[in-house]
Amino acid sequence: MSGMAFTEKLAAAVTRNESLLCVGLDPELELFPSHLQREPATIVEFNRAIIEATQDLVCCYKPNIAFYQRYGAEGWAALRATISSVPPHIPVLLDAKSGDVGNTMRAYADAAFLELKADAVTLAPWYGHDAIRPFLAYRDRGVFLVCRTSNAGGADFQDALIEGEPLYLRVARRAVEWNRPHGHIGLVVGATGPAQARAVRAAAPELAFLVPGLGAQGADLEAAVGAALRSDGAGILAAASRSILYAGSGPDYAGAARAEAQRLRAALNLARAAGVHTR
Amino acid sequence: MSGMAFTEKLAAAVTRNESLLCVGLDPELELFPSHLQREPATIVEFNRAIIEATQDLVCCYKPNIAFYQRYGAEGWAALRATISSVPPHIPVLLDAKSGDVGNTMRAYADAAFLELKADAVTLAPWYGHDAIRPFLAYRDRGVFLVCRTSNAGGADFQDALIEGEPLYLRVARRAVEWNRPHGHIGLVVGATGPAQARAVRAAAPELAFLVPGLGAQGADLEAAVGAALRSDGAGILAAASRSILYAGSGPDYAGAARAEAQRLRAALNLARAAGVHTR
Repeated sequence: MSGMAFTEKLAAAVTRNESLLCVGLDPELELFPSHLQREPATIVEFNRAIIEATQDLVCCYKPNIAFYQRYGAEGWAALRATISSVPPHIPVLLDAKSGDVGNTMRAYADAAFLELKADAVTLAPWYGHDAIRPFLAYRDRGVFLVCRTSNAGGADFQDALIEGEPLYLRVARRAVEWNRPHGHIGLVVGATGPAQARAVRAAAPELAFLVPGLGAQGADLEAAVGAALRSDGAGILAAASRSILYAGSGPDYAGAARAEAQRLRAALNLARAAGVHTR
Repeated sequence: MSGMAFTEKLAAAVTRNESLLCVGLDPELELFPSHLQREPATIVEFNRAIIEATQDLVCCYKPNIAFYQRYGAEGWAALRATISSVPPHIPVLLDAKSGDVGNTMRAYADAAFLELKADAVTLAPWYGHDAIRPFLAYRDRGVFLVCRTSNAGGADFQDALIEGEPLYLRVARRAVEWNRPHGHIGLVVGATGPAQARAVRAAAPELAFLVPGLGAQGADLEAAVGAALRSDGAGILAAASRSILYAGSGPDYAGAARAEAQRLRAALNLARAAGVHTR
């Protein structure tokens, strides 16, 4: 977190690096290059190498808290060190999908914004507006509400019809309302199919979408980007993790990560140009 | 976590201590007794004093992860030390309300069950069945799915009507299905009003309910317990945190916590007896 507010910092990084790519920093020791020690102590070294190799290619970094918690206090220290290793002009989105009520959400907000110094977070929306308010109080940070996830079970509740419309669209509409005063809310919209992304974009024309699943999950990139794109040709953080982090397993893993990030960034930019063109 | 499976361990603690009381171990330094240092280093000392003073009065301890994350790696170490301070015959329910997809949920399950050695966890249900599966794979642990929360915003999505029934009841019905193979799923049912708890109990007659809000939130205890009680006269973990932890602010804070735990345990047992009686 540097002085700039999240929304401006993200826009500046998108422009500066000509990129919609958000790299997920999700360390999995069992996938680490074989010459590295597969121990929590190596996480920061690994992440720093990835950040150094990709920092001119991304608009955001997104560490998922689960992959650090797994290693306890040592993992938590690695998460903090990783976030502070990101250059100040690139925003850090902490993927924690936190959700609870009142007082507890204040503690989660302290953890994300004060202790870890993240620029933005992902949150579970289903606890309602009062639950996310402690996060919204930080007006210079961003909040991404989970709208639709790309897994099979995403349909179990998120697709349930309420007055003829799936629950995830109700989340999108509420997010639009809640975003009005200060404009720092976005949505998590998994790359399941272009039809869903198009429906969410219609319900939330101005909001930024974090779109996981465009890398390893191998959705049809052009269709997915075209459906989620905002009318200004941005509004997407296309998240990829494993496909970049573990692109190589040898000593030049950072070079392999860079090559894959370049490939995906270029593919995203092509899809973006095609999407803007067809509007 | 000792050798016994969560469900049996909970039932044994309910019987042994004649108690439905679950004490939430949520350290808030600003509420600590004034003679203690208000620093993360003091958390374990505080929690141990509370545990020592109440371990013959409770059926479960429930640390909420947010109140530890706020203090970073030091908080995480305190959480781990707190859990390992609980006597092995009392189960520990980690309140994390984790939710995400596939791979990430495996990392969360590792954090909760392997790193922290909790007996049970709370989870967000809205990612669907495949998301909770990595937790269900630990058959000796428990999983409590958030069904209805007691905050005002709980109504924003949880009460949305699907085919004439609120979303939270759909969560309860799915939990019943998912519970069938191994019987270690419960529900989080906030003490909002007896009508909701009664509807959830009707939908899920066999499941254990974690009921927050019976202590500090001051709901009508007898009505709330009566509505949530299982036909065997148990099936409730009545969670209270602040009202017990911060019952006293002087040097005998543990004694004050004990007195308040005794009062609440007795009130719960009276309500339980009345509830069994009226069935």
